[in-house]
Amino acid sequence: MSVPAESWEARAAGKRARTLAKIPRAWRLDPAQLNSAKRQRNLTGAFINRFLQPREIEIVSQDSVELTRAISNAEISAVEVTTAFCKTAAVAHQINNCLHEIFFDQALERAKELDTYLTENGNTDQFHVKGVDTAMGYVGWIGSNLGTKDPSQAHQVESQITTELLSLGAVLYCKTSLPQTLLFGETKNNIIGQTLNPHNQNLSCGGSSGGEGALQALRGSTLGVGTDIGGSVRIPAAFNSIFSLKPTPERLSYREVANTNPGQNTYRSTAGFLSTSVGGLELALRSTLSAKPWIRDPAVVPIPFYEDEIFLVRERADADGGARELHLPLKLGVLWTDKMVGPHLPVLRGLRTVVSALRDAGHKVVDWEPPLHATAERIHASFLEADGAHDVHSHLDLSGEPLISDLQEAFQLRPPLDLLETQDLTLRGLEYEAAYSDYWNSSPDDGQIVDAVIMPVAPHAAVIPGKYYHTVINLLNYSVVVIPVTKANKDTDVVDPSYQPLNDLDKKNWEAYDPEAYDGAPVGLQLVARKFEEEKILGIAQIVTATLKAQGMTNCNTSVG
Amino acid sequence: MSVPAESWEARAAGKRARTLAKIPRAWRLDPAQLNSAKRQRNLTGAFINRFLQPREIEIVSQDSVELTRAISNAEISAVEVTTAFCKTAAVAHQINNCLHEIFFDQALERAKELDTYLTENGNTDQFHVKGVDTAMGYVGWIGSNLGTKDPSQAHQVESQITTELLSLGAVLYCKTSLPQTLLFGETKNNIIGQTLNPHNQNLSCGGSSGGEGALQALRGSTLGVGTDIGGSVRIPAAFNSIFSLKPTPERLSYREVANTNPGQNTYRSTAGFLSTSVGGLELALRSTLSAKPWIRDPAVVPIPFYEDEIFLVRERADADGGARELHLPLKLGVLWTDKMVGPHLPVLRGLRTVVSALRDAGHKVVDWEPPLHATAERIHASFLEADGAHDVHSHLDLSGEPLISDLQEAFQLRPPLDLLETQDLTLRGLEYEAAYSDYWNSSPDDGQIVDAVIMPVAPHAAVIPGKYYHTVINLLNYSVVVIPVTKANKDTDVVDPSYQPLNDLDKKNWEAYDPEAYDGAPVGLQLVARKFEEEKILGIAQIVTATLKAQGMTNCNTSVG
Repeated sequence: MSVPAESWEARAAGKRARTLAKIPRAWRLDPAQLNSAKRQRNLTGAFINRFLQPREIEIVSQDSVELTRAISNAEISAVEVTTAFCKTAAVAHQINNCLHEIFFDQALERAKELDTYLTENGNTDQFHVKGVDTAMGYVGWIGSNLGTKDPSQAHQVESQITTELLSLGAVLYCKTSLPQTLLFGETKNNIIGQTLNPHNQNLSCGGSSGGEGALQALRGSTLGVGTDIGGSVRIPAAFNSIFSLKPTPERLSYREVANTNPGQNTYRSTAGFLSTSVGGLELALRSTLSAKPWIRDPAVVPIPFYEDEIFLVRERADADGGARELHLPLKLGVLWTDKMVGPHLPVLRGLRTVVSALRDAGHKVVDWEPPLHATAERIHASFLEADGAHDVHSHLDLSGEPLISDLQEAFQLRPPLDLLETQDLTLRGLEYEAAYSDYWNSSPDDGQIVDAVIMPVAPHAAVIPGKYYHTVINLLNYSVVVIPVTKANKDTDVVDPSYQPLNDLDKKNWEAYDPEAYDGAPVGLQLVARKFEEEKILGIAQIVTATLKAQGMTNCNTSVG
Repeated sequence: MSVPAESWEARAAGKRARTLAKIPRAWRLDPAQLNSAKRQRNLTGAFINRFLQPREIEIVSQDSVELTRAISNAEISAVEVTTAFCKTAAVAHQINNCLHEIFFDQALERAKELDTYLTENGNTDQFHVKGVDTAMGYVGWIGSNLGTKDPSQAHQVESQITTELLSLGAVLYCKTSLPQTLLFGETKNNIIGQTLNPHNQNLSCGGSSGGEGALQALRGSTLGVGTDIGGSVRIPAAFNSIFSLKPTPERLSYREVANTNPGQNTYRSTAGFLSTSVGGLELALRSTLSAKPWIRDPAVVPIPFYEDEIFLVRERADADGGARELHLPLKLGVLWTDKMVGPHLPVLRGLRTVVSALRDAGHKVVDWEPPLHATAERIHASFLEADGAHDVHSHLDLSGEPLISDLQEAFQLRPPLDLLETQDLTLRGLEYEAAYSDYWNSSPDDGQIVDAVIMPVAPHAAVIPGKYYHTVINLLNYSVVVIPVTKANKDTDVVDPSYQPLNDLDKKNWEAYDPEAYDGAPVGLQLVARKFEEEKILGIAQIVTATLKAQGMTNCNTSVG
């Protein structure tokens, strides 16, 4: 390998400058505007709207379902919609630093060709788009698409899911920011620095799909694709007051998607969606599966979109005119704590809000006491760390860039795990999965097994940068939808001095709660169903959000409609 | 661990004696009868029938579908059917040494309780049945069910698929023999010695499910459960002139099934069926899936039995009154050789027979030239060998028994593979799968992609013991049905002296062909469809066998109806 002639700092700075230069002059903010953004805590809603025209605001306030309907009905042109989202994304990037790649020209060209079905798509920077870099936060990947291994293939490769979205009429116009390694709950790397939370600039936008989460909070996108192995599409949704779907791995194609250490295939990363509505997620899943991804990607399980499942859940909800009079109420478990790190007060209040709303609407909610999540967390972490960070360092070494400070300890180069130990961990993981499944089946004291479980996504609202200590487990490969629920409120979420921490980590996390800093931070929760139950959990998420809305109990959607 | 007081030889001999002692006196053969069997080349059909009554022969000549129909219609009792199969299995074991466990009492007890739906099931000795040993060929497992790890659980555990079969009305009455380690294409271990081929006692019955294959050739079973990671349900079917279904892993439950090195979960062993008819396989799959195994086993993908798929294939076959006038003929690929080891003449003739019959019936057959199987074979073998035989030796060490001579080289204890190397192999395996899938998709020169591919199961008919050199690849996890096609014939399958071996291994295999020894050896072929296409490949297998039968081109089924 030849030593790069240019320093990594220079390459990263060059990349940043080229990205900014791709923003048309008319959409550039002046220094006074940029300064006003820096002083602003909450960039969403009213603040970003001052840089947009009323018609643009009207467009970007709609979700994917409404927009595709309007375009199909020829009420609006694809070009007008694309222009509005490109402009909003351009503004969002200037005030919130959330993009890795900009290709508005390509998008507008494509929009001109389209006159029917269309969705506006952001894309996290793991997905290959022809003609565009996939840097995935590595300086060494700039200009070369190293995720594809063969340098002659630079910018030629297209991730299968990208192809599918394009074939379905999507317009791709930007790639959003990610953390170095992808394995971090914040969004920071040596190319763009960091992306902060548009709802509260003191806080992180989460990670890994943090840029997409931030962009959607600013309405610069209504639908994005991301991946999740430890919370990467769930955390950004919860932190930015939007929605996300983390399917079971093998439901959607991961072919030709860049990833950290893809040879670790025991616990798989999964492609998923972030959207400004549950309907947007449903549209994305239904559309993508209609392309039969399993024919081109042998890793995808051939399960078509089950309309029945969605309708069954909806019919239950609609029976007798409303959720309150259901014949067959949902039965939901609630995991108040994973017994490793207790939730901060805003998250606890979020759980109580949902439980109370669901009970008032006639649904059953039971406490969830599964096999200890700590067991799963240890196994899962072992797999993520198994290669001793060799993969990450191979990419860092391409440019000589260092690990970002937050990851220096976790990703220190060390000997890989022993294979026999890894195989033993595999067995223990399978045993845990079986035990969890047995617990789930054991629930029908009343003849009904639990439909889904409500859980925190993280023990805190959108986190104070540098204070992300605890990762969400993913050992079970369950189907998950994250919904926005509330926002931290310094007046109601006051510290309880009598709290007894469970352990040192819990103490550290508990002490990190700062009512003043967190004020206004989004809180999302995850709704978890079993493997390959994506349609069911989407249906349940629609019921839960409708229930919250009907009871006026949510303040999460002020900026996301 | 305490040192076993008894020698492994004594423990193995004790086990053999206890198994034989479980055969009721009335069913025991006398020394003259046993000697006549030893002198007999072919034990199937007429020979074994001399020890049975006409009514018993009538019963055991029927397949699972006919028997379940007869029992459901109360034309015959469950007890009478069970008795006939127990007696046949008892005779088969005395002349062919194919059982590990006998529990006829338990079976007859159960048959008395049943008056409706019932299938007669053999069971390879990996599946836990309550009250019965699972020794899986290891002396050290005798009496303790070590597959379950917890000795207090001895004989208490039931494999999930056992539970499912029982819930569906199956009667289990014996467990059939396997090779030590399961990873061998013949059936030999230190407990029972070896099981030979009932069609030709010079030859092996194959492995790992060799005992089940042999028992079915002798009509002592119509349906059996086995597992396959490298050919273990396919090879015994091909060698014993019966049928088998190797599904995609995760289609059926593997929960609580004993296995070699279950921590190697990258390339998974899969549970499958052996049967005396395609209809028996279809019945087994439909029945097992009707129990929704995914609810209790989180490793199972929730895909119900697709009746549509079966009917679609059948309708094609029946259109316009016969296969010859199909509107939509099947399009099948044919893999003449895997380019590592060329097929012996009986196998080549088998391929030609099928291709010619299919073409005559109006189906399309095209040559299949996929990415080199050698690539897949190397990757697959690396995973099977990755743990350096540590798992196998841990079980051998329980009793002090040695490896059988055939396996001493392959299973020598050695350092496990390096984890990074394993992860790299994982990636190369995924790439191979994707390339194979691309090749499959590239086939529609005529607008029709290949429905399935016809391949040898092994490069030879039922093999001469000690001459099994080459293993069938399984890297792709495809859905496979094995069908019997022909038998080796010393008069037609004469050696071609001009053959140029491809390599040393091919030379060794080619030289091992002996027309005299192989005469009468069954030849089966595999029909391969893509992942999770079990219903489709069963439907295609029905068309192919019907086509062969209609053209009088098969001599495979003389003893299996």
